[in-house]
Amino acid sequence: MTDSAAAHTDVLARLRDALGERVDTSAAALAAARADKSGHAAAGTPIAVVHAASVADVQATLRIANETRTPVVPRGAATGLAGGANTGTGEIALSVRAMDRIVEVRADDLLAVVEPGIINADLNTRLAPHGVWWAPDPASREISTVGGNIATGAGGLLCAKYGVVRDAVLGLDVVLADGRLLHLGHRSVKGVTGLDLTSLFIGSEGVLGVIVGATLKLRRLVPGAVHTLAATFPDVRTAAAASAAVTAAGLQPSVMELMDATSLAAAHRLLRLTAPEPGAAHLTVQTDGPAAADEAAAIARVLRASGGEVAIAADAEEGERLLAVRRAMHPAMETLGTTLIEDVSVPRSRLAEMFDEVARVEREHGVTIPVVAHAGDGNLHPNFIFEGPDVPAHIWDAADDLFRSALRLGGTLTGEHGIGVLKSRWLADELGDDQWRLQRDIKAVFDPLGILNPGKVFAV
Amino acid sequence: MTDSAAAHTDVLARLRDALGERVDTSAAALAAARADKSGHAAAGTPIAVVHAASVADVQATLRIANETRTPVVPRGAATGLAGGANTGTGEIALSVRAMDRIVEVRADDLLAVVEPGIINADLNTRLAPHGVWWAPDPASREISTVGGNIATGAGGLLCAKYGVVRDAVLGLDVVLADGRLLHLGHRSVKGVTGLDLTSLFIGSEGVLGVIVGATLKLRRLVPGAVHTLAATFPDVRTAAAASAAVTAAGLQPSVMELMDATSLAAAHRLLRLTAPEPGAAHLTVQTDGPAAADEAAAIARVLRASGGEVAIAADAEEGERLLAVRRAMHPAMETLGTTLIEDVSVPRSRLAEMFDEVARVEREHGVTIPVVAHAGDGNLHPNFIFEGPDVPAHIWDAADDLFRSALRLGGTLTGEHGIGVLKSRWLADELGDDQWRLQRDIKAVFDPLGILNPGKVFAV
Repeated sequence: MTDSAAAHTDVLARLRDALGERVDTSAAALAAARADKSGHAAAGTPIAVVHAASVADVQATLRIANETRTPVVPRGAATGLAGGANTGTGEIALSVRAMDRIVEVRADDLLAVVEPGIINADLNTRLAPHGVWWAPDPASREISTVGGNIATGAGGLLCAKYGVVRDAVLGLDVVLADGRLLHLGHRSVKGVTGLDLTSLFIGSEGVLGVIVGATLKLRRLVPGAVHTLAATFPDVRTAAAASAAVTAAGLQPSVMELMDATSLAAAHRLLRLTAPEPGAAHLTVQTDGPAAADEAAAIARVLRASGGEVAIAADAEEGERLLAVRRAMHPAMETLGTTLIEDVSVPRSRLAEMFDEVARVEREHGVTIPVVAHAGDGNLHPNFIFEGPDVPAHIWDAADDLFRSALRLGGTLTGEHGIGVLKSRWLADELGDDQWRLQRDIKAVFDPLGILNPGKVFAV
Repeated sequence: MTDSAAAHTDVLARLRDALGERVDTSAAALAAARADKSGHAAAGTPIAVVHAASVADVQATLRIANETRTPVVPRGAATGLAGGANTGTGEIALSVRAMDRIVEVRADDLLAVVEPGIINADLNTRLAPHGVWWAPDPASREISTVGGNIATGAGGLLCAKYGVVRDAVLGLDVVLADGRLLHLGHRSVKGVTGLDLTSLFIGSEGVLGVIVGATLKLRRLVPGAVHTLAATFPDVRTAAAASAAVTAAGLQPSVMELMDATSLAAAHRLLRLTAPEPGAAHLTVQTDGPAAADEAAAIARVLRASGGEVAIAADAEEGERLLAVRRAMHPAMETLGTTLIEDVSVPRSRLAEMFDEVARVEREHGVTIPVVAHAGDGNLHPNFIFEGPDVPAHIWDAADDLFRSALRLGGTLTGEHGIGVLKSRWLADELGDDQWRLQRDIKAVFDPLGILNPGKVFAV
């Protein structure tokens, strides 16, 4: 037995001693812990998966990890798209997925206290009878956890109207690398006591501590029916400009999703619909609230004036049919090959230019990049298509070119997926070296031994 | 000349060398720099006031301070209520008040880039023709700066409906203690690149760096007229319970302000109005947006059902008359003696209990504590009344008792004023020792020599 193998055996024995059957070393669990939904997997095999059932379990795991200098990778449902939860050789996968209770719902205070492992959609199903909801709505909401949504700063379709995760969390309970439990933030609407560590943890991707509880800021359910419209444009640039015109006109759709020509054609093929005109792009828009019908009509006018052919759904059923094309995006992409789903975000006024950049990168690198965009908030998901399981170098080169375009347009290389392991080599390009080092030094305050999710975010 | 006096002379010479007439050592400027609006002043006299006109001026000042280990206190309009900008012996007051340009307004992207010294109300006056506004609205908005609003995490009347400062800032430019300039955050709606240092700076009260620029998240101007109503209740507990009933009913006023009996009586005396019934308390409520009239009517029903006598303003002019009583609060307090304005915040459902605690503290400590509250978000401003210029020990004892009550009710000792120098001794009570030390260690990452606003927030 090598020294490191002996050390792993010792760590495993201590974990079993403290946590018994919560420690899982089945081949299936270890294999699953290596990957998230990015398609990327960590090298090697983790020491164990710990299925924490309580804050005490998380603390016990971290105390052992701290004493033995063993890396720990916090995990929820592992639906991330940046490899942030991937666990490899010599690491402990610490899953909080089983900690999924709703501790408290206070509709009068518009807050809920939850454990991190609860699924986003399940939470909202259980909040609905109280007349409230939690707004963050990543596309993964049926399978992703609230703790993971917070740890990655996940976005979604509704962000332009209803805010991002940072706007929807009042407080967090976190366990530090050495096992200490901290309570961050407030239960009150206002609170400015010292530094805002709650916000610092949002989007911190497991490098500062493990989120074991969250006090969520809720909203009242929006009354009335949702109105849906869809618009077809001769090309993606016109569609992008039209979506920017909607925002610039002071209209606020709840959802405004853009599909470019390749995406639209693939979705039509999958759904066995008549093929769209070559080059045609597509916007799906929803409005909600008391003025939903008027807003839908006003948006239709802007889209028509911008060159769109608009269909307004007469009822919810027709609205669902219009949305079906957008919903078919991901399965449609799978028909084209393997995909690397990227996540650049730009100011809304630069959306058309960003699509020009996508076209340029496609042309110059000889790659196909179908794009779906949350056009209401300027967040694009370029899907780089390739063959085989691993991302080839020329795809990374094309992605690199696209990231730099987003930065030049005043944007960011990740709107809602995070850095994880897949984008860490571009992080300093966006932050600058000084800020990159400062952020890494802040991580060291929380995790002086560097055992929390090492090699993620700040890896070089 | 003592050693420290010689050192101060050297620092002053270097500042003058680098910054010329931007360095102010007039007796009036030095005296003004000792205090903010809290009524508290720092001991001794600052070395100088630097009136920075540019980012380069801020950097030059901090480079000299860093090399000479001289403390620097960042200042805007010095309207704070916690002593956070007070500058004393051996310290440089670094004012960014003169940096007051609007660099860019993008109504289509709902953002503005501004310098920190611009006055909140001036910014909104200049944004209005673009059809947009910046939502944070501290009561000091006519005299306080945007940079100061961000540095203190200032609140206001509209927070329950339109959010706090943390919800209204996309990015910040900051100068670190050693003079380096960093660009934090994004111009896009979404962005999760590394740790959220923008949020960490919001409410950091000058201990991490100096804010020299801000990218603000704007809102569209709310269309339509504001509707105003006022309600009188037999006692403050009933008024507090009524305000909580409004929120619990799912209604969202833009403004909901509560005055207790002592406040109300003093305001009536000042305005020469008929004295209210003994013990009577008062709510002033405003609604806005397309459904403002309906919401005002619905709120009136809830308030009447909760025991209130309600008047709905027929027009804007009558609305202004109803608001005059609330507006008279601060001048009315000045008729009672010297005031220590406190700032506890509790979950909205605990508002009535918090007023019970105020009554208990008044009784047990033999003090008078008129209260005005932003009832819509659970933020109370207890005004401790005393004679003479300095806060007597028995007033601090009463305040201490009240802070602990707020914490017991799940609240915080400061909703929107910050810690500064006046509340630093209670900070660890709320954060816990572990978090207090962690926050102080994060400060040290930004400011290893401890020259930025020393003795504030983390003082012991």
